[in-house]
Amino acid sequence: MKSSASLQATLAQWMPILAWLPRYRREDLSGDLLAGTITAILLVPQAMAYSLLAGLPPEVGLYASIAPPLVYALFGSSRTLAVGPVAVASLLVAASLGDIAAPGSPEYYAAALLLALMTGLILLILGVARAGFVANFLSHPVMSGFTSAAAIMIIVSQLKHLLGIPLPRAENILHVGPALLTGLGGINPVALGLGLVSIAGLVYSRKYLGAHLRRLGLPAALADPLTKTGPLVLVILATGVTWLLALDQRVALNIVGGIPTGLPPIGIPPLSPELWRELAGAALLIALVGFVESVSVAKVLASKRRQKVDPDQELVGLGMANLGAAFSGGSPVCGGFSRSVVNYSAGANTQLAAIVTAGFIALAVVFLTPFFYYLPQTVLAAIIIVAVSALIDTEMPRRVWHYNKADAASLAITFVVVLTEGIETGIVAGVLTSLALYLWRTSRPHIAVVGRVGDSEHFRNVERHPVHTCPHILAVRVDESLYFANTRFLENFLLAGVAEQPEVRHVVLICSALNYIDASALESLENLILEFRGSGVTLHLAEVKGPVTDKLHRTPFLAHLAPGKLFLSTDEAMAALGCPGPALVDREASGDISTTPVSASAPIL
Amino acid sequence: MKSSASLQATLAQWMPILAWLPRYRREDLSGDLLAGTITAILLVPQAMAYSLLAGLPPEVGLYASIAPPLVYALFGSSRTLAVGPVAVASLLVAASLGDIAAPGSPEYYAAALLLALMTGLILLILGVARAGFVANFLSHPVMSGFTSAAAIMIIVSQLKHLLGIPLPRAENILHVGPALLTGLGGINPVALGLGLVSIAGLVYSRKYLGAHLRRLGLPAALADPLTKTGPLVLVILATGVTWLLALDQRVALNIVGGIPTGLPPIGIPPLSPELWRELAGAALLIALVGFVESVSVAKVLASKRRQKVDPDQELVGLGMANLGAAFSGGSPVCGGFSRSVVNYSAGANTQLAAIVTAGFIALAVVFLTPFFYYLPQTVLAAIIIVAVSALIDTEMPRRVWHYNKADAASLAITFVVVLTEGIETGIVAGVLTSLALYLWRTSRPHIAVVGRVGDSEHFRNVERHPVHTCPHILAVRVDESLYFANTRFLENFLLAGVAEQPEVRHVVLICSALNYIDASALESLENLILEFRGSGVTLHLAEVKGPVTDKLHRTPFLAHLAPGKLFLSTDEAMAALGCPGPALVDREASGDISTTPVSASAPIL
Repeated sequence: MKSSASLQATLAQWMPILAWLPRYRREDLSGDLLAGTITAILLVPQAMAYSLLAGLPPEVGLYASIAPPLVYALFGSSRTLAVGPVAVASLLVAASLGDIAAPGSPEYYAAALLLALMTGLILLILGVARAGFVANFLSHPVMSGFTSAAAIMIIVSQLKHLLGIPLPRAENILHVGPALLTGLGGINPVALGLGLVSIAGLVYSRKYLGAHLRRLGLPAALADPLTKTGPLVLVILATGVTWLLALDQRVALNIVGGIPTGLPPIGIPPLSPELWRELAGAALLIALVGFVESVSVAKVLASKRRQKVDPDQELVGLGMANLGAAFSGGSPVCGGFSRSVVNYSAGANTQLAAIVTAGFIALAVVFLTPFFYYLPQTVLAAIIIVAVSALIDTEMPRRVWHYNKADAASLAITFVVVLTEGIETGIVAGVLTSLALYLWRTSRPHIAVVGRVGDSEHFRNVERHPVHTCPHILAVRVDESLYFANTRFLENFLLAGVAEQPEVRHVVLICSALNYIDASALESLENLILEFRGSGVTLHLAEVKGPVTDKLHRTPFLAHLAPGKLFLSTDEAMAALGCPGPALVDREASGDISTTPVSASAPIL
Repeated sequence: MKSSASLQATLAQWMPILAWLPRYRREDLSGDLLAGTITAILLVPQAMAYSLLAGLPPEVGLYASIAPPLVYALFGSSRTLAVGPVAVASLLVAASLGDIAAPGSPEYYAAALLLALMTGLILLILGVARAGFVANFLSHPVMSGFTSAAAIMIIVSQLKHLLGIPLPRAENILHVGPALLTGLGGINPVALGLGLVSIAGLVYSRKYLGAHLRRLGLPAALADPLTKTGPLVLVILATGVTWLLALDQRVALNIVGGIPTGLPPIGIPPLSPELWRELAGAALLIALVGFVESVSVAKVLASKRRQKVDPDQELVGLGMANLGAAFSGGSPVCGGFSRSVVNYSAGANTQLAAIVTAGFIALAVVFLTPFFYYLPQTVLAAIIIVAVSALIDTEMPRRVWHYNKADAASLAITFVVVLTEGIETGIVAGVLTSLALYLWRTSRPHIAVVGRVGDSEHFRNVERHPVHTCPHILAVRVDESLYFANTRFLENFLLAGVAEQPEVRHVVLICSALNYIDASALESLENLILEFRGSGVTLHLAEVKGPVTDKLHRTPFLAHLAPGKLFLSTDEAMAALGCPGPALVDREASGDISTTPVSASAPIL
């Protein structure tokens, strides 16, 4: 009995649906149904648009909106994340397959399926290994710089549909410039006009329609969902006008054309070993970027309702969703930001909403695709441009510039390199920059000479607080673990300190911020003991943490330290070395101890 | 007057000889003369041997022993470092030039000169930029693994001379195996016998001769220098025997052959741009490895006599010495370990000893090279093998294995990859491993739940000390600065802690070990505030350092933290939140506060 319960718990851990579906509350149903329907209405045009952005036929995006959310509903830990094709992942697909096959060719489509399979496997492996932490190395500024740059690249890539002129696919968006200039003469004014009107309509429905409808007396519960129908209404209107006026024939307006009818084909992606090797980097990138994006959306939504998201389970959920895409003719998927927000604010309570959405998309694929024949590509471009322009992040650059220049540098480098050298290079450059800046910072740790605060047991930086020091003791706190890259920096600081204060007889190294001392640093400290001994100075350590002390006991270091000691607290060290608080000093009327005021406090540093 | 004195001080800073030569003490002269002579006696055969190891004619090593130590004497900050060709740098030269030209060809020699020029320029640039810290990234374990592997590669490379059979130059020493097996039939027994006898003689003179001589009644001051003549005596004996018995003709013993007579040619290394590009990596490696090796020797020797070595000035000194080599027909140089120790223990007091050594080598080049015609190569191989076998470090692997497994891993990876994939790949792999392990460690910081020690103001880990805690407060100390890679780890720890202790109302994050909070971590903390607020828990910070507080004040973070507070000390935080020390609690007879004994102390972690 017990073991069957624990088996059930284990299963529910890996398949969260087993936990929530049996306890499904009837009152959640209406919200889930409404949210599922509205998300489907938003998703149909978006899915086709993102598919074209990825260089794939429009139906592939629809296929990727059926099986993946169904599978995610079984394995995902977020209640409201809406999974499917998204703009950034589509851009990554286009960027990674562009050199492998011609967009639109069967080889290109096959490679996209393989990419979904590999992305799924990578996510799944990371999830089973509980290794979601690798995504931590994509810092927020790097993600912000990347997302903004990707949004700009996506907008540039849509100009060809909006203007009705051919433009090359370019890694470096600057290279689009000349083609744009030479193509200006060939602009299709109908495409451009229709596109601009579409953009204006979408922006209106997104920003103002809700308020206008409410002002007309509609209840908010009806007005808000209606604004989400903007893209679908636009698609229906534009398709109707194009068909009626035969714009494709008369003014050569590019249209979507024939979309196959019927449910997605179930099949196995190609398994060519060279293709696996070629796509490995791209799959890893899509997996990590998609994971980070999905988890951040899922967390934001979960925290609003005090729910929890398990990042490692998200890896499993997203991994299975991508496998679902790969085996049902879909491109790589992840959790979409705007779509999830729509789903959430339309009242989704559980992943049942996603199941409803998938059902509607399946119906659309079976019955509605013939109606999209006359849909102008410029309208899909407009939908993409409006959707991704929300991804351009101007807030984060402003904020990190004020807060932390190193973060600002990582953001700027990612942004610029993504735009000029391509996505993969840009992300790698961003991650390496953030790591290098971190290493640089830890290699020059903050070191403070400290003194006693009044008669307390507290010791603070002599440069920032009015503290009491003794000339024969140099008490120094180093604010970083000691390792090979910063050990020489500390050594130089201490040697310079002792050289500048000839009366110093004891150096107390306060180790409260040290979590470990690596082998190089230990050797360095041993050298320091010898060098100090030469000048009649003794090194002591204070506030060494338990785990560090344990490790030191395994080496001859403490024997070499003698007569220097290991003190539990700085207070204890200072008292033992003849530097108690000023009150005690006054009582003992000792002469050579001085209270250092803030202003004239820093002999060193 | 003042400005001329300060000019003089600046000059003396860049040319330490201006500081020590005017104050040269007469009593230092005898030591310098003796040490200079003995080092020269050791150096003549070593210089030729290392030159052959580098794939260069023997005289190149002698040239590299004249100008470079003279130049170093002007610019170097170490009093006793002996600069010249060394085994590891010679191996690096051979490894980097092997693919560029045939050893022994004029192109090969020209490339070696260019390598010395580039090494010198790199060192000089680093020195002028005071950027010696870059060498810190070569940690001690990586250097140890590299040096041991290099010594083994050098020994393997000498087998062809020792056995008298042809062996291929191989990046991967395992590849030498088959050639060795097939060549076994062609071993020259005279070469092998002479080589083994030479090794035995060298080991004897190094380890036992001194003791035997002293036992025979010689004073130590005479006996010790005599043992250093071992290599030269061996060279003279072996050359004489080879000439007398015509071993080169009768048993085809390989001999050194003709060495040009006369001082080194003064000239400019070739300046072909492609060659510069090709050699850039190798030059950087030689510069860094040579610098690290030289500085460690120089520091060890300086600390014995309470002198100081300035690493940045060492870069200048070694850089100028390499330029000296490049323009006088020499290969790259650095400070040699055994040679410097010999120089030091023979009584060298200043760089005058190096000037004496250079003078003797110059005399040898002018007058003695004809005498080396019949010197057997197997004897030089024996000298190299005995010299470098001292570089195989078995102590460091043993020590780091016990002390720190991450250091042991860096060492092992460097060692194995150098041997199997080559030197450059090996060092890069070692550096990357040590950096990756460091990042891994900081991405999973040590986090401790803490409690009050008795009635003191000290707070310690509940798992290691008998401390006093209150159930409604979770006080947590994180032992690492917060940055993108570890912020999620902390978040998970705190959320799990609060979830497991439903009675917790306040979380106090003790920031004594935090030197900064980057933008990603700040966002994470803001999320945490919201998530805690959802469960009725308030986050507080304590012991935030001055610079971190300053930065937080530039953001809206502290406004978002409210009603959570920033406390100066943990004591203050605990008192304000209703958890004073046990004595106070007893007085107040409060019921819900408990003193946690060590054994049953850890609700979390």
